[in-house]
Amino acid sequence: MSSTWGNNIKLSIFGESHGKAIGVVIDGLPPGEKIDFEDVELHLKRRRPGSSGLMTERNECDTVEMVSGLLNGFTTGTPLCAVFSNSDVDKYAYKELIFRPGHADYTGYVRYKGFADFRGGGHFSGRLTCPLVFAGAICRQILRKRGIIIGSHIISVGDINDEPFDSVRISNEFLENLSKEYFPVINKNKKVQMQEKILEVKSDSDSIGAVIECAILGIPAGIGNPIFDNIESKISGIIFAIPGVKGIEFGNGFDSSRMKGSQNNDEFTFENGKIRTKTNNHGGILGGISSGMPIIFRVAFKPTPSIGKIQKTVSHKDNSQREISIKGRHDPCIAVRAAPVVESAAAVALTDLIVI
Amino acid sequence: MSSTWGNNIKLSIFGESHGKAIGVVIDGLPPGEKIDFEDVELHLKRRRPGSSGLMTERNECDTVEMVSGLLNGFTTGTPLCAVFSNSDVDKYAYKELIFRPGHADYTGYVRYKGFADFRGGGHFSGRLTCPLVFAGAICRQILRKRGIIIGSHIISVGDINDEPFDSVRISNEFLENLSKEYFPVINKNKKVQMQEKILEVKSDSDSIGAVIECAILGIPAGIGNPIFDNIESKISGIIFAIPGVKGIEFGNGFDSSRMKGSQNNDEFTFENGKIRTKTNNHGGILGGISSGMPIIFRVAFKPTPSIGKIQKTVSHKDNSQREISIKGRHDPCIAVRAAPVVESAAAVALTDLIVI
Amino acid sequence: MSSTWGNNIKLSIFGESHGKAIGVVIDGLPPGEKIDFEDVELHLKRRRPGSSGLMTERNECDTVEMVSGLLNGFTTGTPLCAVFSNSDVDKYAYKELIFRPGHADYTGYVRYKGFADFRGGGHFSGRLTCPLVFAGAICRQILRKRGIIIGSHIISVGDINDEPFDSVRISNEFLENLSKEYFPVINKNKKVQMQEKILEVKSDSDSIGAVIECAILGIPAGIGNPIFDNIESKISGIIFAIPGVKGIEFGNGFDSSRMKGSQNNDEFTFENGKIRTKTNNHGGILGGISSGMPIIFRVAFKPTPSIGKIQKTVSHKDNSQREISIKGRHDPCIAVRAAPVVESAAAVALTDLIVI
Amino acid sequence: MSSTWGNNIKLSIFGESHGKAIGVVIDGLPPGEKIDFEDVELHLKRRRPGSSGLMTERNECDTVEMVSGLLNGFTTGTPLCAVFSNSDVDKYAYKELIFRPGHADYTGYVRYKGFADFRGGGHFSGRLTCPLVFAGAICRQILRKRGIIIGSHIISVGDINDEPFDSVRISNEFLENLSKEYFPVINKNKKVQMQEKILEVKSDSDSIGAVIECAILGIPAGIGNPIFDNIESKISGIIFAIPGVKGIEFGNGFDSSRMKGSQNNDEFTFENGKIRTKTNNHGGILGGISSGMPIIFRVAFKPTPSIGKIQKTVSHKDNSQREISIKGRHDPCIAVRAAPVVESAAAVALTDLIVI
Repeated sequence: MSSTWGNNIKLSIFGESHGKAIGVVIDGLPPGEKIDFEDVELHLKRRRPGSSGLMTERNECDTVEMVSGLLNGFTTGTPLCAVFSNSDVDKYAYKELIFRPGHADYTGYVRYKGFADFRGGGHFSGRLTCPLVFAGAICRQILRKRGIIIGSHIISVGDINDEPFDSVRISNEFLENLSKEYFPVINKNKKVQMQEKILEVKSDSDSIGAVIECAILGIPAGIGNPIFDNIESKISGIIFAIPGVKGIEFGNGFDSSRMKGSQNNDEFTFENGKIRTKTNNHGGILGGISSGMPIIFRVAFKPTPSIGKIQKTVSHKDNSQREISIKGRHDPCIAVRAAPVVESAAAVALTDLIVI
Repeated sequence: MSSTWGNNIKLSIFGESHGKAIGVVIDGLPPGEKIDFEDVELHLKRRRPGSSGLMTERNECDTVEMVSGLLNGFTTGTPLCAVFSNSDVDKYAYKELIFRPGHADYTGYVRYKGFADFRGGGHFSGRLTCPLVFAGAICRQILRKRGIIIGSHIISVGDINDEPFDSVRISNEFLENLSKEYFPVINKNKKVQMQEKILEVKSDSDSIGAVIECAILGIPAGIGNPIFDNIESKISGIIFAIPGVKGIEFGNGFDSSRMKGSQNNDEFTFENGKIRTKTNNHGGILGGISSGMPIIFRVAFKPTPSIGKIQKTVSHKDNSQREISIKGRHDPCIAVRAAPVVESAAAVALTDLIVI
Repeated sequence: MSSTWGNNIKLSIFGESHGKAIGVVIDGLPPGEKIDFEDVELHLKRRRPGSSGLMTERNECDTVEMVSGLLNGFTTGTPLCAVFSNSDVDKYAYKELIFRPGHADYTGYVRYKGFADFRGGGHFSGRLTCPLVFAGAICRQILRKRGIIIGSHIISVGDINDEPFDSVRISNEFLENLSKEYFPVINKNKKVQMQEKILEVKSDSDSIGAVIECAILGIPAGIGNPIFDNIESKISGIIFAIPGVKGIEFGNGFDSSRMKGSQNNDEFTFENGKIRTKTNNHGGILGGISSGMPIIFRVAFKPTPSIGKIQKTVSHKDNSQREISIKGRHDPCIAVRAAPVVESAAAVALTDLIVI
Repeated sequence: MSSTWGNNIKLSIFGESHGKAIGVVIDGLPPGEKIDFEDVELHLKRRRPGSSGLMTERNECDTVEMVSGLLNGFTTGTPLCAVFSNSDVDKYAYKELIFRPGHADYTGYVRYKGFADFRGGGHFSGRLTCPLVFAGAICRQILRKRGIIIGSHIISVGDINDEPFDSVRISNEFLENLSKEYFPVINKNKKVQMQEKILEVKSDSDSIGAVIECAILGIPAGIGNPIFDNIESKISGIIFAIPGVKGIEFGNGFDSSRMKGSQNNDEFTFENGKIRTKTNNHGGILGGISSGMPIIFRVAFKPTPSIGKIQKTVSHKDNSQREISIKGRHDPCIAVRAAPVVESAAAVALTDLIVI
């Protein structure tokens, strides 16, 4: 199996990059949730390749067609199906299957015995994050009504680092505003440097990796489970569905491996009659269960594998050694458009845990 | 739900640290697999707290009682149940529930409305990794017959770093020998430094974090799935079931976020008539599917939260501010015993993906 | 959750009777299966309301649009999505929600708090069996290549009974021919009587129940599982997804409750070097696992609840007592069109058990 | 997979009839539920083979050992594990595997390639219903606190029929009293006739089938789902886990197939300000969702396949034709002890649907 996910809600994502359409079925949504499609459109647009020099110029119009599950603007509670037509298709790209380094061309070729549709990456394409962002946009509206806010920023591009979230005092307003930006960075100077860096690698026919830091506010203490169905498993399970993700860490993450217990432990205290921790090195999760503190995690994206530089590889036809220079329209840094995808994945994971 | 996992095999882990017993039901194992219990015992012993000064002195005898699913030394194919009695129980520890910093005491208390058994951490205790290691020991034998070897080493303790695996040329023999060690490190000098570091923090009533690097050899290309049920999701989903894990990364992981595409991409080539990559920055997984190269991932463990130093916290009774100094018997570095747990989690994940 | 099903393959059915479209996502199909769309069309047509006086005259054109998962006529192995537009929609039927006796109007109204789309029964409509027949038509082709044939007949309409299958000697050819008929009955005389009966109740503004008997040939011994994931659970779980089903029985079924062990037991014997049973009272399943004999089961359909006769009921508006006479276009005997639906449900269940 | 079940709660049943022990892990129970073990014992005893002449004399003591998930008499919310030792084991019965007609010996032998433990039926034994009754006994206590009562009676043995439930007016008290009886029948005269019938077939070394009718009171309207995860699928899925079940029907069931819509439809009306149906031919479920009326279903049990009469069969060794006369200790009518098993299966199914 590959493209179905969830316990309380079920996501089923379908489609290929250059096929007829892509889409998603979301089953298990609560009935009677009013959906704001301007807000949905905002997040689809944040994911969509723009006209700025930072991104690919493919015109994925991402016009959503609501097939089912919605009546008079409210969820019906029965499966919601949304379809996105593939309008701007370059039928002639990739027609010969030379295995692109860093892509799933080879692994998918073996997995599906040569029968998969590999035009534009097919079902493996980053375009498939569009229905995920749609599902996330629906879920985050449902969560917001329950007081839960999700946002993220680009905490690093290459070796240029933004400031991290204030994991204790971050406010709903700050996070919500950030979650509307197209290039969300906390420190404006760093944003400029990051954009310059991206243009620099682009002009060199290269690409660059990045890290997204995501925060979730408003989760009450006591959500999640010990052992297998813990919050980290839930979130990481869906985050790794995003193409290009190579790592995830919660709270202090890998840094905690270099710390002492006396540094990393968060002491409990009272604030306004509620139990909180003074610091939030644990990232809002202890024993797989929410502590009521902000949930903080970071996701590492590798550099876009599609680069103009000449690379050596092999062809599926004769297994002959070949050279490839990928011309198409590609983001030099996939992580920029990944911020709304990460937020959406988190929104879906939390809806599955919380909304019943 | 909390303690059930898997698609093709199902794991159900039960028990509390200071209750009657802990154990696991494994459903879906193939029939007719001969089980070598000396090998099972080896891995249980690797996880078990030893007599060395590095670890807690609690005598968890970990004698396994086979309840079902095994006949004349072979798996029957019906559910295998193994139970571990809790023999050496210190009934008086933790009888008052002062929320220990860095533990699940508080979050579990809220989750289970005060009804969970929190003696010794209860169902959240690290002791619950014993049945996971047992399940992994069974699974790795099944995998080994299919040519798959799993091993790991402690790649860092605090800021002391071991050499990483040679992700392209690592051999079965090397990995299998490593997987039998009690303190697996590639560079012997680093091992000494790590052990000194651990004794140092221990003598200071403190603890230290660490990172485990795990390798899986022999996975053919084409295993796994795009989008949700990919190998990374599968592995990370079960790895986060291990107490103390705060991050996971595959291949170059977070380092890839600081690299260019031209550096991080792995070129395809031929070797002995088989497609391979020259480098293995992708860690054996592309698009969620195995490439045939070694699968490499690293798991970050936080420092043991149980420390002797005085910490501030609150009590569940009156929410009064309290101080706590955790006396019991605790590992100053949980990651040491975590190596076989990480390997076991990987073995279970791969068995679920591969063995049918 | 409601509309997602399966372990090895996943079905996700979406849509409402009078909404934009209905459809299905099938995940987990093997790659490289050539699909014969004439055969698919045959089964869709068998389910479709025809022009004969026996059935409703609603023109559901059932033209399938393949959205994904198919390339050059072969399955790709990635999710297959098929969509059926709702062309002939009578927008003004049912616009007031008077709870029709025997329908899901009331229960669905409570379940979805009034937000579900109840035009034409919405997501509860018999029209939703169209994507199920489509999925089954795909699955039965896959099964047929593996030697498995599925067919059914109308074994009774009211108190008119067809001959039962010869549960020991039924042939592939006989079953396959039967599975192409629009009104499958073994005894032609009984067929005429059944059709007369249906026209009789129709002319009286009434409806009539029926039973479908289904056979599956070619399942080798040893498929299925003890306890929960047995063949009966698998098949019955999906059969009850068909609107109007009130009962299911395997082999001798309810009749076996009136028999002695010495009558009902099937003795084992050899035939051409293979173990078989002399009789097949067990219906091809013992202990939840296939015996290699034909699998036989019967499904009871209640009479169509939509009838022209005046019935008493209540309205959702003011809970006032009301009278209703359902005028629309309805089958007087839903079971006639149900034969291909039952076969399809069985095909999906077996594909989930067998095809990996 | 075979022995794991559920969405909101997960059941994992393990063990073999003549192995060390059998048991169950129940994951997902709410915390803080006080368990009355006298009531649990009552239902275990109802299932247990008694000393009356009607049943097998095997002394299955069924003493439950609580391994986890219970503290001070309350559920903790973490997995509850219960183990039943196999005390009175006849090690020498069945040591040669002659395939008993009507049993799973042959199908299980093929399924598990000869490795399963077939002493006493092994994992296929009716003894495995003991942990299911235990799980059901826990679940029905949880349901009862939420106003839900489950009970059943033996509605037929062979051709002797008890009166059916009054599906509209059945009272909680009547049902609860019935659910405590060892041979639950509504009409006392019929009970005597049934018992005589059973003794008659027993004295003739034969056995007899029966039907259990089960009622569930107190389910509010709106529980369940359309299409796949409907109440009938949920209940039938677990009912077919009971050895010997060959059919299930809800409400009028197979009888509805012989009725007209005008006879079978249940008109809606008001009673004390609540919507109800005047009759209950639908058995409390419409469109897969509860209507608020009593849920009524019937389960057909075949005659016990173990009979003393001589039967022809084959041996697994040489495939030679053999004769068998099953001497052991067997119920002449498994359905008698099946009443608490059916109720328990229903209790587990409803807990999975309702208790969160």
